Amino acid sequence: MKIGILLAGCGVYDGAEIHEAVFTLLAVDENDAQAVFVAPDVEQHHVVNHATGEETDEKRNVFVESARIARGDIKKLADVTADDFDALVIPGGFGAAKNLNKWAFKGPDGDVLPDVKRIILELVEAGKPVGAVCMGPTVVAKALEGSGREPVLTVGTTDKPSPYDIKDVSDGMAKIGAKPEMKSVEEVAVDEKNKIVTGPCYMMEASVKQIRANAKMVVDNVVKLAG
Amino acid sequence: MKIGILLAGCGVYDGAEIHEAVFTLLAVDENDAQAVFVAPDVEQHHVVNHATGEETDEKRNVFVESARIARGDIKKLADVTADDFDALVIPGGFGAAKNLNKWAFKGPDGDVLPDVKRIILELVEAGKPVGAVCMGPTVVAKALEGSGREPVLTVGTTDKPSPYDIKDVSDGMAKIGAKPEMKSVEEVAVDEKNKIVTGPCYMMEASVKQIRANAKMVVDNVVKLAG
Repeated sequence: MKIGILLAGCGVYDGAEIHEAVFTLLAVDENDAQAVFVAPDVEQHHVVNHATGEETDEKRNVFVESARIARGDIKKLADVTADDFDALVIPGGFGAAKNLNKWAFKGPDGDVLPDVKRIILELVEAGKPVGAVCMGPTVVAKALEGSGREPVLTVGTTDKPSPYDIKDVSDGMAKIGAKPEMKSVEEVAVDEKNKIVTGPCYMMEASVKQIRANAKMVVDNVVKLAG
Repeated sequence: MKIGILLAGCGVYDGAEIHEAVFTLLAVDENDAQAVFVAPDVEQHHVVNHATGEETDEKRNVFVESARIARGDIKKLADVTADDFDALVIPGGFGAAKNLNKWAFKGPDGDVLPDVKRIILELVEAGKPVGAVCMGPTVVAKALEGSGREPVLTVGTTDKPSPYDIKDVSDGMAKIGAKPEMKSVEEVAVDEKNKIVTGPCYMMEASVKQIRANAKMVVDNVVKLAG
């Protein structure tokens, strides 16, 4: 089984969240599946100095930076189709919401990259599972906007501590046709009909162990739905 | 228990190996210890495009790039002493051998960063454990060169497939006073006298699961020696 992992750079504030990406990779390997890293060949929205949190004047490319997590073994998103994998998982980080869609700036009104929309639609239409964690579910919501599929998605719960505004993101997803569910970092939302599995990961206050377990739960459910 | 994790950037070819760093972090959390990321505030030796393997003309800072793995929560190496942790673990990647020492260019004849030498010597002299994986053990070898401590270290074994020249690196470590041991990715070398634990990780051909297990074995032994 081949599972695509869609990266959005390398680093939580301007790219893919590194821990979530690596724990996704580990869970894929633990399921004896083959990970296929992919990323769009586009410029990052911006570059953030992760030590200070400040924007820099550098330019970096999403594909090139994502290759750091993939140890160089990565394909350009434009070069792959749903035929290339049995499922796809999208780690979070602000890169998902800055480089794949523009949720970080415009909420549900931002655009999603055309190739990101294409691959997700292709997979869902082919009955192949899609997983997403953290802000990744907003990418799925944007990709399926207008499809009439009403995907069940979670980015966390308002019942437990979160550094983010879970209600705001959930309401935004509902606005564009998704059905948000409240889930803790120890749970995932499973949409059996659309074969979509989502988990909050770092959208909630969580330990590294909990992030590892939540990413694994998403991947395990994706593999089950793909099987 | 506080365990320092010494990073050398972010990405296998010019910085810390990301998977090894994240699996080290996970194992620290699984041991209910607190991870304290540290990195030297120095310019990277160079920047490598991880998609092509080619050097670029960018300049990046080891501390700033390491902060990507640490999600911004990281201290400058110059600002910490052995009093700040109970143990230290050094993930691998070429950053260890390009930014912390110069093994990638000069083998055992290259320099080690003075602050890296200082913190390792302080820890060993205080009887606090030091762990290292992949090329990390060469950093320990350089730090203890001339100390008369004869640290037992491994970077892998010539008995199993490796993408690297294990004999050459092992011989280089012996040349500067270490006692190299041949270990597979399913083993670690434990130097009880000096409280140093090393594992091959990506110096050997290995699956992601094996890297995860090897890093955990190093951290588990470090915690045991620190206990």
